[in-house]
Amino acid sequence: MSAFQIQDPDYEARVRKTFAGQMALATLGVTLTRIEPGTLELQMPYDVRFSQQNGFLHGGIVSAGLDTACGLASYTLMPAQADILTVEFKINLLAPAKGQTFRFVGNVVKPGRTLVIAEGRAFASDDGREKLVATMSATMMTMLRRG
Amino acid sequence: MSAFQIQDPDYEARVRKTFAGQMALATLGVTLTRIEPGTLELQMPYDVRFSQQNGFLHGGIVSAGLDTACGLASYTLMPAQADILTVEFKINLLAPAKGQTFRFVGNVVKPGRTLVIAEGRAFASDDGREKLVATMSATMMTMLRRG
Amino acid sequence: MSAFQIQDPDYEARVRKTFAGQMALATLGVTLTRIEPGTLELQMPYDVRFSQQNGFLHGGIVSAGLDTACGLASYTLMPAQADILTVEFKINLLAPAKGQTFRFVGNVVKPGRTLVIAEGRAFASDDGREKLVATMSATMMTMLRRG
Amino acid sequence: MSAFQIQDPDYEARVRKTFAGQMALATLGVTLTRIEPGTLELQMPYDVRFSQQNGFLHGGIVSAGLDTACGLASYTLMPAQADILTVEFKINLLAPAKGQTFRFVGNVVKPGRTLVIAEGRAFASDDGREKLVATMSATMMTMLRRG
Repeated sequence: MSAFQIQDPDYEARVRKTFAGQMALATLGVTLTRIEPGTLELQMPYDVRFSQQNGFLHGGIVSAGLDTACGLASYTLMPAQADILTVEFKINLLAPAKGQTFRFVGNVVKPGRTLVIAEGRAFASDDGREKLVATMSATMMTMLRRG
Repeated sequence: MSAFQIQDPDYEARVRKTFAGQMALATLGVTLTRIEPGTLELQMPYDVRFSQQNGFLHGGIVSAGLDTACGLASYTLMPAQADILTVEFKINLLAPAKGQTFRFVGNVVKPGRTLVIAEGRAFASDDGREKLVATMSATMMTMLRRG
Repeated sequence: MSAFQIQDPDYEARVRKTFAGQMALATLGVTLTRIEPGTLELQMPYDVRFSQQNGFLHGGIVSAGLDTACGLASYTLMPAQADILTVEFKINLLAPAKGQTFRFVGNVVKPGRTLVIAEGRAFASDDGREKLVATMSATMMTMLRRG
Repeated sequence: MSAFQIQDPDYEARVRKTFAGQMALATLGVTLTRIEPGTLELQMPYDVRFSQQNGFLHGGIVSAGLDTACGLASYTLMPAQADILTVEFKINLLAPAKGQTFRFVGNVVKPGRTLVIAEGRAFASDDGREKLVATMSATMMTMLRRG
């Protein structure tokens, strides 16, 4: 049950289209596993091609996953003709992203006409045990298409 | 001319080894183009495989580049037996990362025994004109290897 | 019921002493209204002396309240002989801090030996209706006193 | 010589009026010591009433000073009929704010129609030696008054 009001009844199709249009997400192997008004979940498998010096998922890739989860969670609440921009985000990396699969959850904290504030949590699943590895707070901007 | 004192005369070899050990950087096509005590520069070409929905470089990939530049700039000042961890970073995305090549510069602001604070700037070069597209502030942690 | 393990059975006295030693908090009229392992709540009344140009509580004062709540929440989990430093924080100001009383809640997200990561939420109570006005994420550092 | 274009030739009077309207700044003893398009400097003396547990200036008060410097620096570039809101800021506290006077400098990094991105640096002057004690990155929003 979401606390948020949608502006676009077709929000899910719109968000999925934007997701599908991001080649970076296909390259990283990201899949969209949950979508609700104000909430979005992504998952991706470990891939050694995106590892850092100790073999764990690179922190920059964790931030890419969380940025996308926060952005698309915000995008669920935007109007039909809106584009979305990430204004800024901050990430705290709490533990090495060690695991076989990763889960990125974005939640809207405060929707606004121009700006939407969201929070994200990244989890690593390692041998079946899931652990919180990063938190994000992000500001997203609604860009209304003209014409 | 750097304002910073190094602790490890072989810092450059140590930083280059850590850089080379990050498979994510090879996958993204990142090259290390400048290294000095407290400063580091990376470059990467545009690659459609890492694009977002408008065809520009994905903001999460920009953050991966800046995180790495800030981290390795900090790592130049750490002792020989240190590992490095990103504690947190914040990024402001100022403009779409539109261009053919990208440049990520990390500079240490304040080195400390345990924590090093760094700042980063990302530039996109589009048809020969370079533009500031993102700024970062980051906290890095020195992890001393035992034994 | 807290999920966090304390290291100092006298944490409450230690936190209250640090709270009492901060003259800024007395000047702002801040009171400590809840303390548990990993959680801390502060309250302060509106005071026109700390207002911004529209008569609301100044955003910088909101950040002072949240910084303190996050810091003291983290301090509950630190060892007896520890001092605490704020490394960094980020605040999102979601709505004007308009009201008669303000509540600042800090919660530890991840305690570590050296660093503790915390989150804060600031609420304004206006004519009996409480509203979320700001969120914070913060990194706190344990400083062990020598000797 | 500023790199930034002003939209309001009377920006200085407008910024000074907003400064004067913030009672928190008078209470803290803040003075406006420099104003140019995209740049603003504030100073305040040490005041034990705003100290933390070790007698230094409270980090939250440092953030209030930097938030204000970044906000008013951004406000110099906004149109005549604009109000200003702080969307978010992040601060790194690099060293204790120990000294007799403090200086807060805000600089615009990127002005935009809706959002202005600024950076701040806080300095403590202790027995005549000035030291960088904090850095900030902030997002400010232009609010156009209707009517």
